[in-house]
Amino acid sequence: MRVGVLTGGGDCPGLNAVMRAVVRKGVQGYGYDFVGFRDGWRGALEGDTVQLDIPAVRGMLPRGGTLLGSSRTNPFKEQNGVHRISETLAKHEVDALVAIGGEDTLGVAARLTDEHGVKCVGVPKTIDNDLSATDYTFGFNTAVTVATEAIDRLHTTAESHMRVLVVEVMGRHAGWIALHSGLAGGANCILIPEQRFDLDQVCAWVTSRFKASYAPIVVVAEGAMPKGGDMVLKDGSLDSFGHVRLSGVGEWLAKQIEEHTGKEARTTVLGHTQRGGTPSAFDRWLATRFGLHAIDAVRDGEWGVMVALRGTDIVRVPLAEATRKLKTVDPALYEEAGVFFG
Amino acid sequence: MRVGVLTGGGDCPGLNAVMRAVVRKGVQGYGYDFVGFRDGWRGALEGDTVQLDIPAVRGMLPRGGTLLGSSRTNPFKEQNGVHRISETLAKHEVDALVAIGGEDTLGVAARLTDEHGVKCVGVPKTIDNDLSATDYTFGFNTAVTVATEAIDRLHTTAESHMRVLVVEVMGRHAGWIALHSGLAGGANCILIPEQRFDLDQVCAWVTSRFKASYAPIVVVAEGAMPKGGDMVLKDGSLDSFGHVRLSGVGEWLAKQIEEHTGKEARTTVLGHTQRGGTPSAFDRWLATRFGLHAIDAVRDGEWGVMVALRGTDIVRVPLAEATRKLKTVDPALYEEAGVFFG
Amino acid sequence: MRVGVLTGGGDCPGLNAVMRAVVRKGVQGYGYDFVGFRDGWRGALEGDTVQLDIPAVRGMLPRGGTLLGSSRTNPFKEQNGVHRISETLAKHEVDALVAIGGEDTLGVAARLTDEHGVKCVGVPKTIDNDLSATDYTFGFNTAVTVATEAIDRLHTTAESHMRVLVVEVMGRHAGWIALHSGLAGGANCILIPEQRFDLDQVCAWVTSRFKASYAPIVVVAEGAMPKGGDMVLKDGSLDSFGHVRLSGVGEWLAKQIEEHTGKEARTTVLGHTQRGGTPSAFDRWLATRFGLHAIDAVRDGEWGVMVALRGTDIVRVPLAEATRKLKTVDPALYEEAGVFFG
Amino acid sequence: MRVGVLTGGGDCPGLNAVMRAVVRKGVQGYGYDFVGFRDGWRGALEGDTVQLDIPAVRGMLPRGGTLLGSSRTNPFKEQNGVHRISETLAKHEVDALVAIGGEDTLGVAARLTDEHGVKCVGVPKTIDNDLSATDYTFGFNTAVTVATEAIDRLHTTAESHMRVLVVEVMGRHAGWIALHSGLAGGANCILIPEQRFDLDQVCAWVTSRFKASYAPIVVVAEGAMPKGGDMVLKDGSLDSFGHVRLSGVGEWLAKQIEEHTGKEARTTVLGHTQRGGTPSAFDRWLATRFGLHAIDAVRDGEWGVMVALRGTDIVRVPLAEATRKLKTVDPALYEEAGVFFG
Repeated sequence: MRVGVLTGGGDCPGLNAVMRAVVRKGVQGYGYDFVGFRDGWRGALEGDTVQLDIPAVRGMLPRGGTLLGSSRTNPFKEQNGVHRISETLAKHEVDALVAIGGEDTLGVAARLTDEHGVKCVGVPKTIDNDLSATDYTFGFNTAVTVATEAIDRLHTTAESHMRVLVVEVMGRHAGWIALHSGLAGGANCILIPEQRFDLDQVCAWVTSRFKASYAPIVVVAEGAMPKGGDMVLKDGSLDSFGHVRLSGVGEWLAKQIEEHTGKEARTTVLGHTQRGGTPSAFDRWLATRFGLHAIDAVRDGEWGVMVALRGTDIVRVPLAEATRKLKTVDPALYEEAGVFFG
Repeated sequence: MRVGVLTGGGDCPGLNAVMRAVVRKGVQGYGYDFVGFRDGWRGALEGDTVQLDIPAVRGMLPRGGTLLGSSRTNPFKEQNGVHRISETLAKHEVDALVAIGGEDTLGVAARLTDEHGVKCVGVPKTIDNDLSATDYTFGFNTAVTVATEAIDRLHTTAESHMRVLVVEVMGRHAGWIALHSGLAGGANCILIPEQRFDLDQVCAWVTSRFKASYAPIVVVAEGAMPKGGDMVLKDGSLDSFGHVRLSGVGEWLAKQIEEHTGKEARTTVLGHTQRGGTPSAFDRWLATRFGLHAIDAVRDGEWGVMVALRGTDIVRVPLAEATRKLKTVDPALYEEAGVFFG
Repeated sequence: MRVGVLTGGGDCPGLNAVMRAVVRKGVQGYGYDFVGFRDGWRGALEGDTVQLDIPAVRGMLPRGGTLLGSSRTNPFKEQNGVHRISETLAKHEVDALVAIGGEDTLGVAARLTDEHGVKCVGVPKTIDNDLSATDYTFGFNTAVTVATEAIDRLHTTAESHMRVLVVEVMGRHAGWIALHSGLAGGANCILIPEQRFDLDQVCAWVTSRFKASYAPIVVVAEGAMPKGGDMVLKDGSLDSFGHVRLSGVGEWLAKQIEEHTGKEARTTVLGHTQRGGTPSAFDRWLATRFGLHAIDAVRDGEWGVMVALRGTDIVRVPLAEATRKLKTVDPALYEEAGVFFG
Repeated sequence: MRVGVLTGGGDCPGLNAVMRAVVRKGVQGYGYDFVGFRDGWRGALEGDTVQLDIPAVRGMLPRGGTLLGSSRTNPFKEQNGVHRISETLAKHEVDALVAIGGEDTLGVAARLTDEHGVKCVGVPKTIDNDLSATDYTFGFNTAVTVATEAIDRLHTTAESHMRVLVVEVMGRHAGWIALHSGLAGGANCILIPEQRFDLDQVCAWVTSRFKASYAPIVVVAEGAMPKGGDMVLKDGSLDSFGHVRLSGVGEWLAKQIEEHTGKEARTTVLGHTQRGGTPSAFDRWLATRFGLHAIDAVRDGEWGVMVALRGTDIVRVPLAEATRKLKTVDPALYEEAGVFFG
């Protein structure tokens, strides 16, 4: 059995750990060999391959990034995409594919399996943790850890200067990173994309916090929006993936808070530090287990599924189902955190 | 409603985070007030109290240790223990108790509720993660993180000098810390208390690892034992809690490996660094949620239960049931890790 | 002897460690007692004091921020400023002052000593390390450490996506943080305020780096400026200290690189995370030694001096001299780093 | 010009960073090429080489260990050692040698230059910081940082359980790591090899610390010895380098403290975690500068010297002089720290 492996979408700590586990168990446990495709589906389209064997994955467990590279190429949007992938797989005698990626990458894998009989197994990857089929995805814990350490450092600056500190974290459509790092970092206000925030309420919390003689930390997800939609974003330009750049909410908010409360406010945008670098111990463990179970699914010939975490178990879930619904923050969970606001 | 709070047993990162959440939600959400008992059940026996209000828990989220102190006093082993506790609760007009601790502390809480009608809610605490009623306990992720960072550092020393490095981690009866940190740290062999290890097998893994030109890391739980029971412990003395000091397995193992393989071996005993200091982001989140749900159980008048994590939910479990069975490492899970041995 | 202590200027890890050392040695070694002034010279002007004794400094060694608070109040710009300070000192029977701060705070101390006979000893504090009288100031090593860890994390993101990552670090007038963190983090280009940069050269380095199949990291100090002065800053507004906000160079640069090289570029502004939180081991050691030697200067009655690091020794330097000249990056040192550019 | 490079002696974070700087500047700045010798002088004796060029050092800046391997082989103790080295150098057309190592490695380089005309430049390496010719050596700051983080974690355990925690750190002949990490970690007692300690005094400090309601941390260098020499070491066996294993002082001390004070005491031996893993930002900077200046000395044809840090400058020092005298902790410096004891 020869298995192709690829990684798609944005950077996420743990990708290399998944591949190491896939290859170690595939080679040593089942006698498979492997071929890596460079830059996600692009490599599969163009036949751009990377050697993927035990020496290739040695030392990769703690390494961030992906040794295969990544892209957002979608074969269904390319001329003859599916046909070209079939040709690549035939040429390299690839029997099955392990696709590691988010909604887009796994959506392609689902269609390739369902509509074209390509034997795919998926491993879910989203740093935002917004996939409904799994309790957690790897990378998320690392992002929360990095954000929490930053918030820890900002507390003393806030208090020494009696300033408001606004921390903008990742999360365009789901507020998981904001919620977890805000709770873990002791934020005085957490704003998430799932619920439009009331600027007056935020300013009231800020003011009440100062009255208690402490300086507030506001954690805001990059996708959070004020009520009334009156936020003027820094610019309306599109990034290279066609998304509007939303990175301005933190700065917008700091300016509003200064105007409404008379307190000095500063913004820190954590940005890409949240998604690079070595994975946390939790993410290495989760990524390793995902890899081991993905290659087991290959051995079992169970195609069109992805691995998922449920409690402490790794289970298999149909790909089509898994990618159907975004997992957003439950209103009850957000309300639970509200006791720490203000 | 006046609620007493106490922490019992060994140090565990997250204890203060639990208390902060209990007090914040209790005071702000429900208008309760609180009294802390110093040093676990000892404070409840002797009426030794600590002020516990919102100023007392301010800044405690990231702090290791416990602001209330801890002990292993068991009121059922003290003269008139239960009676003296009842008197303390009456004197301080305490209506309910939140007991944060491990098997022993929660076992006392269970009996006080069941046999004597004391209104107790429990919060589970075991750094070893060996409680069957909950997916994880706080403190465990911190311990695994500290151990993984240490293993990361030891890899380069092992390889620069072509030595075997034996890392002894916590875990007297359950190998969870060894299993998770060994997987996350890329250990070449993980030894746990649940399965007696075969010294010849360990030496064979060590030798095969050197043949591949890499130096091995062996992670061993402090409670791991060789087959045949032929390990001569460093000393047979009892510590102050009446446990035999088992801290010698790492050193014993290094000596055996040197003798059997002819390779130099060194031991690092991580010891108390695993259980002190600031909690990881995961543990702060878990401890905070445990605290919020414990005070909700108090509000609901649901006595004799403890909070527990199931997937991403916090649930309530009868105390008596929760402490009945040790959660040890499932043989299948240990076997899964075996692909990385040697 | 009663000694007043105050901290002025921006947040800097190690301020509390200085005060702990001053108080521990002052009380235990010399039998002095202490009074803290809140918020720098403001507290001395207004007689706003804080208790400062051994219990007050307990546990403060690892804590960021300043337990006394800080401000940028300058008594020479206040009505009757010097007179009011004299009154406060007389009222609280303060014999001598230990002033911990930067150029402004120490400049006030120098004039109070020289012109008004107030017995002052200074401890230098600048996170930017731009004071010529001392090899290093505390806080600088922490800032470099935080920035280096961020750069470490950004490398993998840069390489996985073949993007340019621009990291903006602190340093308005001196490029020390950029130089040290850029060298330690393996940056492919470091831009400092001391030398206007040539955008074409930066773009040439970026392009050559991509040719070698690696994605570049550009570290830029917030005060760096392009040749020709054609940078359009994000806004020209003044912050509350009357400084123009320069925080836009990173973003400006990323946009220029995208336009000139056709490569995607992203910016991360590290901001206040560099100056908050627990001090590094080096900074705790330096701050502690500064504190011990400052109180020795008080005991010796040597006024108008500040402590300074020379090699591994702590020496005393006249305050007036110490604050005269900004220590900027030596061109030879910057050239030395140039071998790693591109 | 072809330059040979080798690393000798124990593991030390920053070795790879030195080599990266040597090679980057040598190749790009001066057009040299390089050959690496495997395992220190052993590789030079046996002609065992490693390719050393720009691709070989890519990504090595943050990596612990040494890509060349290390040993303690001494050519002056080998049959025909010097002759065999000359043959290797001739065969590989090596014009000059950069030797990175401690007293032993540099001592060999000194004799090879002085007695046999081999063109050597040295880079000092000792994690213990005990070389008198330089303010600091790389690796030392990393070791102090690791030890300080461990002490931070141990404080909470000490206080929660009111136990004495003894932390044994590296330092056989010099107490620099103990002194710096003890000061930075807020230890209540620091014991160094330079001064025999008085057990009664240590116990008095422990007791007085408990009276102030806090639990003590004792930091002890592995080479510290009690007055009277009555310490019974764990064993008198020799390790593979012929040194007596001294690693028992921590445990011995904890037992003595328990017996003399009646307080529970525990020991943590930090061991090899102090010398492995990624170098700190400071050490990466220092190692990089050492490498740049070493290759400059080669270019200048200045043989028989090593690079050294003086203040913030890198200077050249005759090898023979540099290795002559151990830099131990100055009694005045140790006394300065004494204000924090007890």
